[in-house]
Amino acid sequence: MLPGPTNVPNRVINAMLTPMINHRSDDFRKLYKDIVNKTQTVFETENDIVVLTTSGTGAVETSVLNLIKKDDAVIIPVNGEFSTRLADLIDNYGGKTIRINSPYGQNPPIEKIEEVFEKNSNIKALYVVYNETSTGTTLRNLSKLGDLCKAHGAFFVVDAVSILGGDELPVDKWNVDVCFTATQKALAAPPGIAPISVSKEAKKYMIENPPPSQYLNLKRYFKYYSDSFETPFTPAVSLFYAYQEALNIIIEEGMQNRISRHRKCANAFYSGLEALGFTPFADADSRSNVVIALNYLPGIDDKKFRELLSTKFKVLLAGGFGELKGKVFRVGCMGEVSSYHVMRTLSAISSSMSILGVQPIRDGLSVANNVLNQ
Amino acid sequence: MLPGPTNVPNRVINAMLTPMINHRSDDFRKLYKDIVNKTQTVFETENDIVVLTTSGTGAVETSVLNLIKKDDAVIIPVNGEFSTRLADLIDNYGGKTIRINSPYGQNPPIEKIEEVFEKNSNIKALYVVYNETSTGTTLRNLSKLGDLCKAHGAFFVVDAVSILGGDELPVDKWNVDVCFTATQKALAAPPGIAPISVSKEAKKYMIENPPPSQYLNLKRYFKYYSDSFETPFTPAVSLFYAYQEALNIIIEEGMQNRISRHRKCANAFYSGLEALGFTPFADADSRSNVVIALNYLPGIDDKKFRELLSTKFKVLLAGGFGELKGKVFRVGCMGEVSSYHVMRTLSAISSSMSILGVQPIRDGLSVANNVLNQ
Repeated sequence: MLPGPTNVPNRVINAMLTPMINHRSDDFRKLYKDIVNKTQTVFETENDIVVLTTSGTGAVETSVLNLIKKDDAVIIPVNGEFSTRLADLIDNYGGKTIRINSPYGQNPPIEKIEEVFEKNSNIKALYVVYNETSTGTTLRNLSKLGDLCKAHGAFFVVDAVSILGGDELPVDKWNVDVCFTATQKALAAPPGIAPISVSKEAKKYMIENPPPSQYLNLKRYFKYYSDSFETPFTPAVSLFYAYQEALNIIIEEGMQNRISRHRKCANAFYSGLEALGFTPFADADSRSNVVIALNYLPGIDDKKFRELLSTKFKVLLAGGFGELKGKVFRVGCMGEVSSYHVMRTLSAISSSMSILGVQPIRDGLSVANNVLNQ
Repeated sequence: MLPGPTNVPNRVINAMLTPMINHRSDDFRKLYKDIVNKTQTVFETENDIVVLTTSGTGAVETSVLNLIKKDDAVIIPVNGEFSTRLADLIDNYGGKTIRINSPYGQNPPIEKIEEVFEKNSNIKALYVVYNETSTGTTLRNLSKLGDLCKAHGAFFVVDAVSILGGDELPVDKWNVDVCFTATQKALAAPPGIAPISVSKEAKKYMIENPPPSQYLNLKRYFKYYSDSFETPFTPAVSLFYAYQEALNIIIEEGMQNRISRHRKCANAFYSGLEALGFTPFADADSRSNVVIALNYLPGIDDKKFRELLSTKFKVLLAGGFGELKGKVFRVGCMGEVSSYHVMRTLSAISSSMSILGVQPIRDGLSVANNVLNQ
C-alpha cells in the first residue's frame, strides 16, 4: 500500500517474458506506436508523446532542460518535498523561480498566482506538481491555471508523476503544454520508464532551442519518432512491453471508471481512518485521491506502528518525508487499489492500534464499508 | 546476431517475474548490494559502483557531466560514430576536446597520444571508446593508456558499452578511473540500466564539483549507497533482478572462460568469413572480438543480403553506420554467443551468397569449425 512502486498485475509482469527484440525493427516500431497511441488516450491528448528510459525524476529534469533557459522566469507553487526539489532544479539550471509558498497540506489561492502573472509580463512557464506525494495534497484548479497560462502566453507544465491514471488530467482540455508521469505509480507498471507529452508550441520551442544534453534531449526523440517510430537510444524494451499491457488494462477499464474507483477508495480510506481517530494531513479541498496522508495520534510511534503493520499484517505503509518524518503516515491508493485493499489495510491499522494500546474512536471498518457500498 | 540488444537467457528473463518490491526496503538493499559486489567482480575493481536507470548513452553523459567542466582539456581518440558522438558531447558541455583522429577501422599510434600529453600540461582526462561498435574496432593498448594518465595526473575514462563482459577489462589493473557499460550487450541482460565504476580520486572530484543535474548526479548516488545501499531515485527494479541473474551466469562461467569463448567465436567468425571471401573492415591488430565488421563483396547488396538472412534464415545482422552504410555488415559476437551461433550464422551467410549468385571462395564453415575445435 505504498505510494509507488505499486503492485503490478500479473498480466503486466508476464508481458516482460516476451523475447528480446531489436529496437531498430518493425516489431519495436509497432510496439512503440501502440504505446504512444494508448498513452495519448490515457493522457486525453493529441500532443506528441515520448517515452523516456528513466525514472520520474529523469522526466522532471527533461521538462526543465528542454524548456527553461538562463534567467527565464518560472512560477511554481511550493508546498512539499517534490515541489521544492523541482523549484531547486529549475534554479540550478539557471532559471529564476518565483515560488508561491503555502503551508504543507495546503494549496495557494489562485489569486496569488494571478497576481504574479499580472505583475510580470515575462513569465516563461508555470510549473506545478499536481500531486504532492510527500503530503498527500493535490492541486484542484489545474483547469483554471491552464487558462491563466494561455492568457499570458506562458507554458503550462504539469508534474503528474504520482497521480496520472488515478485522477482527472485531460491534458488538451486543460491546456497542458508538458505533462509527464512515471509508470510505477497510478499506471501500475514496473518502474524505469517515463512518458511525457508535449504540445505543438512547446515542441516548436524545444526543437529551436535544444539543450546540450544528448540523453534527455527531446528534439532527438521527436526526430526519431517522426522519421521511423523509434527512440534515439536503446529503450528498456521489457519495460515497454509491461507498460503496453498496463495501458491495455487501463483502457479496458476506462479512464472514468478508473478515476471513480480511485475516488471511492480514497473516500473510504479518509472516512474509515477519521472514524478510527486519525485526522487527514491535507486541507479538505486539496486532499489527494491517490496518496492518503494522516497525522499520527499520540501514543502511536511511527517506526513501531509501521513495523507492526509490515511484520504482523504484511501491509506496507510509507512514513513522512523531511520535516514530516514521524508526524504522518501515508497510504498509497493507486493502480490496482480496490475495496479489498481498503478493508484489509483498515483492518490491519485498527488491529495495530489495539496492539499498541490506542483505542479506535469508532468502527472505521464499517464506516469505510458503507462508503464502498454507496 | 546483432551487436545489442543481444539474446537474453531464459534464466535472466524469468528473474523479472519476481514480485515488485519497494526500493526503500531491505529486500531492495540486499538486491542492490549483491549487484554492486558482483559488478565489482566482473569489472575486476574495488571502486564504487553505481547502477543508473538509463541506456548506455545515459551513462556516457553521466561520465561527462560529473567530470568535465567548462574549458577542461580532454584527449579523445576518434575513429567512428560513437567516439565522434562522445567527443561532440564533451564539447557541447563546454569541454575542449583534443581529438586524435584516425581512419575508421584503425587505432591511433600511442605516440600521438603521448605527444599531446607532453605538449599540454593541463589535460583533465583521456576518454576512450574501448570498442567502436560502428566499425568493429577495439583499442588494444588500454593498459598503457592507463599508465600514461597516471603519469600525467589525468582521469582515464573508458566507454565499455558494447564490450564489457566479452573482452578483457581489469579496471583496477589498468588504472581506469571511470568505466561504464550497458546491460544489453556482452552482459546479456535486457536494456535499460547501466553500471558505472568510479575510482576514489574521481569520486572525490565528483563530490566536490557536482553538476546541476539531479538525475545524472553521481554525488547523490554515492550518498544514497553509503547511507543506506539505495539509489536516490526509483530504480528499474525488474531490470535489477534481470541484471543480477545475468551477473550470476557470468560468475558461474568465470570471466576468463567467458573472454576465451568470445575470442574463440570471434576467431572462427573472422576465419570463416574470410574463407567465404569477405575482408574484415578493421586492421588486424584492432579487430573486435565482440562486433565483427566485414566489407561487402561486389554483387552483394546490403539491403537484399540482410533481408534474405532475416526472412529465410531468421538471422539478424546489422548494417553500417553513417558513411559505412551499405559498405559493411556487422555481426554481434557477444553474450550467449557459442559454436552453434557461429556455425548457424556462417551457414546462413554462405547460403545467402549462393542465392544472390556470389560464389564463396572456400568452405567457410569447415574453416570456422576447425577454429572452434582447436
